[in-house]
Amino acid sequence: MSVWCNGAFVDHLTLDLAERGLMLGDGIFETIAVREGRAIWLDAHLARMARTADALGLAFDEHKLRGALFSVLIKSAAPSEVLRITLTRGPTGRGFAINGDKPTLMISLNPFDLSKLPASVRLATSTIRRNPSAPSSHFKTISYIDGIAAAREVAGRADDALLLNTEGHVACTTIANVFLLKDATLITPSDGQGILPGIARAVIMAGVAELGLSLELRPVQSAELATADAVFVTNSLRLATPVSSIDGKACGMRAIDDINAFLERDFS
Amino acid sequence: MSVWCNGAFVDHLTLDLAERGLMLGDGIFETIAVREGRAIWLDAHLARMARTADALGLAFDEHKLRGALFSVLIKSAAPSEVLRITLTRGPTGRGFAINGDKPTLMISLNPFDLSKLPASVRLATSTIRRNPSAPSSHFKTISYIDGIAAAREVAGRADDALLLNTEGHVACTTIANVFLLKDATLITPSDGQGILPGIARAVIMAGVAELGLSLELRPVQSAELATADAVFVTNSLRLATPVSSIDGKACGMRAIDDINAFLERDFS
Repeated sequence: MSVWCNGAFVDHLTLDLAERGLMLGDGIFETIAVREGRAIWLDAHLARMARTADALGLAFDEHKLRGALFSVLIKSAAPSEVLRITLTRGPTGRGFAINGDKPTLMISLNPFDLSKLPASVRLATSTIRRNPSAPSSHFKTISYIDGIAAAREVAGRADDALLLNTEGHVACTTIANVFLLKDATLITPSDGQGILPGIARAVIMAGVAELGLSLELRPVQSAELATADAVFVTNSLRLATPVSSIDGKACGMRAIDDINAFLERDFS
Repeated sequence: MSVWCNGAFVDHLTLDLAERGLMLGDGIFETIAVREGRAIWLDAHLARMARTADALGLAFDEHKLRGALFSVLIKSAAPSEVLRITLTRGPTGRGFAINGDKPTLMISLNPFDLSKLPASVRLATSTIRRNPSAPSSHFKTISYIDGIAAAREVAGRADDALLLNTEGHVACTTIANVFLLKDATLITPSDGQGILPGIARAVIMAGVAELGLSLELRPVQSAELATADAVFVTNSLRLATPVSSIDGKACGMRAIDDINAFLERDFS
């Protein structure tokens, strides 16, 4: 599978020796669901990427990016695919010099097998906490080592790690936002809790009224997970997935089919 | 300047499209001072790298690395240089699959101009905190975006960011450990405070008796910085550098020449 990199399709990445994405995790990314060649929630993903680039001082040219996306998506070859956009600060000198006037832009499109998605996931609480003050917590950056380490920590006993924040409140998993369903209320950790503001999460938040639910955006105590009617996790590729257990204790399993049906409307 | 990468000297990095160092900051590094072709504190750096690789599940072959270092260091071309070793998990499939049996090893050697080192540095406190629970805080990983963002936050008003931890105690800067000198006592944040255990820091800690000082390894309150006789920062390249001011307030400026003289003994 080839990748579009800085203007051309390539079979290998040829990078400058001082590429900061590789040397210092100095870059950002988006992963986007693609159906029949159409990128789902593209505007929302690009808006988040623009905000992130601005906050971190990365050059972001949306017009150029959209042109590149067109040349990638036209090669779509499967009904379900995943698009990944990676933007780094590019090559600079040693040290933390903050300017990079030659950003590296990479775009990949790969098949995404929907039949392999889990019907539910088991979570286990990681000892690694999310840090609400850290850009790596609230932006989608390629500095992902803490999430990788958390996933490794729970591998074998769970499918993903539940991450609390440094204050002990529920934050997210290594790849998804967390929601609790309790009676007619949907509860999810608020933006200041060390979470990435997910796109699927935003779509659900905007749709609560239509779903006949009310929304609580606030700090969430981990004890609340045990008494919820359902706990589920969301991301742009997997949509909403029920959590079957946390640290070996079964979760409430009220069906969330209506929430997935609501999300999937944008996919057809 | 060429780089040694996976067995050969190259002018550009040619990487697999799924290289995890680039896609997920999934790698570690060391920066090592080199004088007249000799890597200073090499054993300590490699021991730290081995511990880090083990903790993060990265394949680390010290024998092979030492062979590669020999072929790089023999090309030494300046009296003062900086050696950087970067090890990533290499290419894997999508997602957080945790095994990588083809790690990417890169080694660079570049001139390091000692005449440009600052005589002292001004610090400013960042709003970004160090997270004691995070591998990115206590290991030297390439997931460096939080440090980059902190350096950007204070650029223009300071030379480096002072990072407190999520409990509000003094941790470190984006590139250095922090020490306080108070009467005959040297004080530095202990290992659980969200700091990278620096090599220069360890050398100083091991030398306190010889320096006629006692050592306190403990949580450090930020108020203590104002009453110290001297505050200084350390790393393997710059050794000990006095801090002249923090958030615009002048620091105690008792000389630390004896500490640098002690460190420099290993450089001659």
